[in-house]
Amino acid sequence: MSNILSSFRDVRLQGFGERVPVDEAIKWIDGHPRSASFEDIPIAAANGRVLAQPFVAPADAPAVDSTARNGYALRSAETVGASSYNPLLFRTQAGQATPGAFSGVPVSSGSPLPPGTDAVAPFELARIAADTSELLGPVAQGSGVILGGQEARLGATLIDTSRPLRAFDLGLISSFGIERVRVIRRPLVRIVVTGPRPSGNPADANGPMLRALVARDGGSIEACEYGVTKRDDIASLIARPGADVVLVCGRTGTGADDEAPLALNAVGTLSIHGIALRPGDSSGMGSAGGVPVILLPGNPLACMSAYDLFAGRLIRRLGGRRSQLPYRVQKAKVGRKIVSSIGDVEFCRVRFDAEEVVPTGSANSGGLACVARADGFVVVPAPLEGYAPGTLVDVYMYDSELESIGI
Amino acid sequence: MSNILSSFRDVRLQGFGERVPVDEAIKWIDGHPRSASFEDIPIAAANGRVLAQPFVAPADAPAVDSTARNGYALRSAETVGASSYNPLLFRTQAGQATPGAFSGVPVSSGSPLPPGTDAVAPFELARIAADTSELLGPVAQGSGVILGGQEARLGATLIDTSRPLRAFDLGLISSFGIERVRVIRRPLVRIVVTGPRPSGNPADANGPMLRALVARDGGSIEACEYGVTKRDDIASLIARPGADVVLVCGRTGTGADDEAPLALNAVGTLSIHGIALRPGDSSGMGSAGGVPVILLPGNPLACMSAYDLFAGRLIRRLGGRRSQLPYRVQKAKVGRKIVSSIGDVEFCRVRFDAEEVVPTGSANSGGLACVARADGFVVVPAPLEGYAPGTLVDVYMYDSELESIGI
Repeated sequence: MSNILSSFRDVRLQGFGERVPVDEAIKWIDGHPRSASFEDIPIAAANGRVLAQPFVAPADAPAVDSTARNGYALRSAETVGASSYNPLLFRTQAGQATPGAFSGVPVSSGSPLPPGTDAVAPFELARIAADTSELLGPVAQGSGVILGGQEARLGATLIDTSRPLRAFDLGLISSFGIERVRVIRRPLVRIVVTGPRPSGNPADANGPMLRALVARDGGSIEACEYGVTKRDDIASLIARPGADVVLVCGRTGTGADDEAPLALNAVGTLSIHGIALRPGDSSGMGSAGGVPVILLPGNPLACMSAYDLFAGRLIRRLGGRRSQLPYRVQKAKVGRKIVSSIGDVEFCRVRFDAEEVVPTGSANSGGLACVARADGFVVVPAPLEGYAPGTLVDVYMYDSELESIGI
Repeated sequence: MSNILSSFRDVRLQGFGERVPVDEAIKWIDGHPRSASFEDIPIAAANGRVLAQPFVAPADAPAVDSTARNGYALRSAETVGASSYNPLLFRTQAGQATPGAFSGVPVSSGSPLPPGTDAVAPFELARIAADTSELLGPVAQGSGVILGGQEARLGATLIDTSRPLRAFDLGLISSFGIERVRVIRRPLVRIVVTGPRPSGNPADANGPMLRALVARDGGSIEACEYGVTKRDDIASLIARPGADVVLVCGRTGTGADDEAPLALNAVGTLSIHGIALRPGDSSGMGSAGGVPVILLPGNPLACMSAYDLFAGRLIRRLGGRRSQLPYRVQKAKVGRKIVSSIGDVEFCRVRFDAEEVVPTGSANSGGLACVARADGFVVVPAPLEGYAPGTLVDVYMYDSELESIGI
């Protein structure tokens, strides 16, 4: 970890010296714990949350032998040989008492199986008369029946903690009469967006974008502070207690007014500053009062790359989610050369042109408009100077970005 | 559309006659409009929403020629021939005035380009002294510069209406100083969960599940009513004004207490009841007071299939989203025979076993526990009796289910 800063260096008007490889920055991120703490929440609010411990069936499901369809509950042995040419006469017997010989009890799906019966013939298989009806075919033992415990056995692990809860998990948990679940607490994320520069991409492009990305990754916005530019003001916002993670956006580079690294150094430790990532090389990370602080570049494209690789990873981990980039990966061939700098990990936005992908902008131009035009992005590893046409690459697809329902 | 009901038929204790093909039910769904109405919302709340009209650049971006990195803004022509062996002496000139000959203006990324300059040399390329510094290499014209309008031209369409807004779209819109956007209103969905039967899968498994699915598909819960069982009570909840879509869950089948179809028929029109879908064949659809009403089976597995195919499709359409099942599709080989009934579209939950998929339960057993164990599902078309081992099939992957941030 030779590139981790041992002492603070002011890079303003100087430039970065050697930059930290992306791998080392990720190692720093992964040195943080996998979850914040736990909380108990109502099941209706638990979609997308991660269980604190595996969900174990608290009872057999169903609790008793039950009907799996609407029809007549009956004794299967009595139906042998029934057909439309040779219908079986049977009596209709309402209620849940044990039916007499050659009797069927009309049942609705999901009810307890009447005692003595072992199958349910669908209504469609019967021809109904007032009191005596006809069964037009045989019914196999167990047909239309779910045995007690068939769906889940008391004590069986039904949902593990490896993934966020899905809609049907809520149904499954709720089906046992459970109303609250213990989940990993959402990490509280403070976003500090420094003041914009007078032209170009106003810095406030980053605020709404970061809020949505933090929500996507399972974080909860503790506060979103805009417009600070002075070192002391940034430092106060970093040091204020109450967040699990602090993101400082903008003022991270080598310009005279790039005060964020100095602010972090004033109230905590700047562990990494300057990373071999394009766009996003002015990113940094450290901590203050035990809280990790990520410095994100003010250029929105650079901010996105650094957020996804570092800040998002930290938030995903703290919320018990998978560390990886939260995009599905699709293989595709490169249709037009993708250019990259040797030594830098490079994010390149691409769009599909027929079956191939072509860049929608370069690392340092195109802005967010080139992202809006893109179908996804390609990450070029540090040792490569890009990808030649025809190369098969992994495309991280934007259409798999999780859509949140409000922040 | 011969199978669409022309007049109401009571199927209780009788069974369905001919069931409506899934294709016809989908055609009925697709007869509804693609959007509800519009609303203007703050950009911070717009993630995952669909624009009412394409977003067109309201100005050039950037507004003027701007710096794309930190460094010295200078005249590129003056740097020709500079190298570390033959450094170019230049004066450092602060401020935004037109620099003199062989002068560099220290600039931060995202600022207007000082007049007269045409490139920005990164600080790393210079060796700094008090007043006169050395440039260690040439800088190409336009290097480190973004021209006015280079990212986006006034009037260019930057985001179309074909997909929900993503995090970076919010940043892009916000970068123009726009604070509110016009989006398609979320369809208001009323969920009516009928009372549970005494055992088996309690019907209230469906409530939390449906809430989460509606949120995933961009709907907003207008109300969620539980526990009704009487025809009149269900009918009142169907007929009450205020929703864009009503989902009635449970009591849809052929049992004596299956009152939902009769309730809909009492206050509106039951257009389809009984669909060739497994599980889910007791599904129905119709309308009351101009509002579409979907009848979903009470069995949670059947409810899920019918929700995804019909109710979710309607909600996605009304919210301006794509109609299709909102899961990513992955090709995989069948590892163990998938059984299906000829004539029925069948949903079969599968999990990956090495590279192949195997069923985690059958249509009529397994319950939600078989879904929690699954990685996704396979849809077997009506004409097939399943898939033999080795068949290459489309798997709809659960890991792509959109995770909502609360309902």
